[in-house]
Amino acid sequence: MDEGELGRHLDRMWAALEDVGRDPRGGYRRLAYTAPELTLREWFGGEAAARGLDLHEDRAGNLWAWWGDASAGDAVAVGSHLDSVRQGGAFDGPLGVTSALLAVDVLRARGCRPSRPVAVVAFADEEGSRFGVACAGSRLLTGQLDPDRARALVDDDGVTLAEALRSSGRDPDDLGADPDVVSALGAYVELHVEQGRGLVDLGAPLGVASAIRAHGRWRFDLLGTPDHAGTTRLADRDDPMLTHARLVLAAREAAGGRGGVATVGRVQARPNTVNAIASEVRTWLDARADREPDVRAIVAEVARVAGVEPIEESWTPRVELDAALRERVEERLVARLGAVPVLATGAGHDAGILPLAGVPSAMLFVRNPTGISHAPAEHAERDDCVTGVLGLADVLEELACR
Amino acid sequence: MDEGELGRHLDRMWAALEDVGRDPRGGYRRLAYTAPELTLREWFGGEAAARGLDLHEDRAGNLWAWWGDASAGDAVAVGSHLDSVRQGGAFDGPLGVTSALLAVDVLRARGCRPSRPVAVVAFADEEGSRFGVACAGSRLLTGQLDPDRARALVDDDGVTLAEALRSSGRDPDDLGADPDVVSALGAYVELHVEQGRGLVDLGAPLGVASAIRAHGRWRFDLLGTPDHAGTTRLADRDDPMLTHARLVLAAREAAGGRGGVATVGRVQARPNTVNAIASEVRTWLDARADREPDVRAIVAEVARVAGVEPIEESWTPRVELDAALRERVEERLVARLGAVPVLATGAGHDAGILPLAGVPSAMLFVRNPTGISHAPAEHAERDDCVTGVLGLADVLEELACR
Repeated sequence: MDEGELGRHLDRMWAALEDVGRDPRGGYRRLAYTAPELTLREWFGGEAAARGLDLHEDRAGNLWAWWGDASAGDAVAVGSHLDSVRQGGAFDGPLGVTSALLAVDVLRARGCRPSRPVAVVAFADEEGSRFGVACAGSRLLTGQLDPDRARALVDDDGVTLAEALRSSGRDPDDLGADPDVVSALGAYVELHVEQGRGLVDLGAPLGVASAIRAHGRWRFDLLGTPDHAGTTRLADRDDPMLTHARLVLAAREAAGGRGGVATVGRVQARPNTVNAIASEVRTWLDARADREPDVRAIVAEVARVAGVEPIEESWTPRVELDAALRERVEERLVARLGAVPVLATGAGHDAGILPLAGVPSAMLFVRNPTGISHAPAEHAERDDCVTGVLGLADVLEELACR
Repeated sequence: MDEGELGRHLDRMWAALEDVGRDPRGGYRRLAYTAPELTLREWFGGEAAARGLDLHEDRAGNLWAWWGDASAGDAVAVGSHLDSVRQGGAFDGPLGVTSALLAVDVLRARGCRPSRPVAVVAFADEEGSRFGVACAGSRLLTGQLDPDRARALVDDDGVTLAEALRSSGRDPDDLGADPDVVSALGAYVELHVEQGRGLVDLGAPLGVASAIRAHGRWRFDLLGTPDHAGTTRLADRDDPMLTHARLVLAAREAAGGRGGVATVGRVQARPNTVNAIASEVRTWLDARADREPDVRAIVAEVARVAGVEPIEESWTPRVELDAALRERVEERLVARLGAVPVLATGAGHDAGILPLAGVPSAMLFVRNPTGISHAPAEHAERDDCVTGVLGLADVLEELACR
């Protein structure tokens, strides 16, 4: 398969996805177990079937398309996820899944007969945008998210994950860790659009991840006394919106002082009425830093200003990706491209979860000319996407076809 | 009709309302033209029919139940509204409507034959909690809200007022001022639960309004650059949540300095995702003060900090209620109670809108033991409610039965 043909395959796959789950406010909204995300799952099943890959959904809702015998062990998984944030970009997630499927096509065209099983994987609910826990699919799979807690997670409309599973035809009682799947894996490789300006500033189409920074999400339930906005004296007020405001500014200040980042991107006031003092403001904090103690210090400082205990919705320690696997990935990409930057990333990924369960993992990044992600302006050039597929195919060949 | 009988009538009416539109988070949610509010409109029609009052809906969606000839002119209207804020109390609005219906019963029991027409009115969309404009029904009626602007108002789900009218069986093209109705009115009297601690601190069951303070609502559309919360350096960010936080604190500061009140009770972040810097934060400001220039100064100071022009969603100048009408109301209440406090209020009411169209208006307040309103803790004791009905009947007798 030459690059022209590969590009046409890529265009065809991309065209099938481009109208699924458009957010009326721009970009995409493909939240876990909503109609667009279920459409993408069906699309994935169709792509697997078209390639003769055996489709399997594990107990955590992740989809696996097997090339070879799933039970043989020491498998190489390649993939990413299909869900998006609200008003998200087209590439975060689907680029890794389409690239993995196309890499299989490339290897077959090269005549590869895998020496170990290969699986293309689409992890469930990576963004956590509906139920609040990022990488929920890989966390459940590896036993790092308790299924009881997961089933009880609630979306903005009051729907629990258990209900969402049931209405999509799944049995929520089945939800849980799936050690048979985990123990069958020997390595995981995820290709992802870069979420920053590292590669574009270096002029490189592809990069390799060294580590995933420590990061987490915390919720602050700021309680006040609801009352009339026009008749309650300032001195008599207990207004949680003021606490929220101080929290937002404190988060920025604390992150700046610790060399990390902190963001309040999500807020929910109740009853959220113009002429009433809020009874409650829920504020979500996303905080990340190279060093775990710095993240903890940022959260502690914010909690001090907020005056309430933060509720930890997710936490991922700093993950150093497997050095030996990374070197093999680097060598193949250097052979193709001459040089390849190695970058740490502040974004969470399923490739940061699987190592916690003993699965060596690696990541390839594809250059993002805007540097923007989780937003409609997220982008990757078609040529870079083709280079990404070829690089991923080289890596997969290295790992599974020798 | 003795007080015991009146109390039982009141209990019966209250029982019919108590399960309509309960908010799952507490209190009531009876937003304009939603199912619970339409149920309350039907209830009102039934109460009118049971009393042989002629029901009429004007072009602004307000309901009028006529005792006497609507076309005779110089009518006395009594009533309030049926809609609520989100998580609102049971009394704000419905207490005035039920009291007006019961006052008609009391007058009939007293053998009153009105010398001028009497109308019990339920104004539409007083709270403005769905479409953002308070007193929308009385503003439309009196030509103070342009029907084109009104039809285009949008609720949180993207539904326009025009669509809401259509799906409730109304023709949105009919929406507009209704000068025939306005010119038929000689006076308007509204009974309302007090929204503050004035009467409870004075130990008085009823009070009379002197004036309604200047107040308004402004929206600030704070724009930023959406991006990934984990990978975007602090220095590269354009995060509207920070502007929102500064705005909230500036509003409090500015109101304190001007002897007014300012509240941010409503906020809407987009896309409202934990791990993305917001693309936009919409922040609503409610500001009030005795003097109009003080309100304007508060809003100007907040706008300076926000760095954007505020969008004025509603504005009501200070309204001095009609002195001659107030004196007649006071005299009758003093005759019943011995003394009656006169209070200015920071809350907006339809009784603050009708005077702008030349209809002399008065307000009676019923003691609220919590002082809280626009929240589930809003309350009025049953005995005070009965006293309120009798006081309102006295006033109506004074105005219409002599």
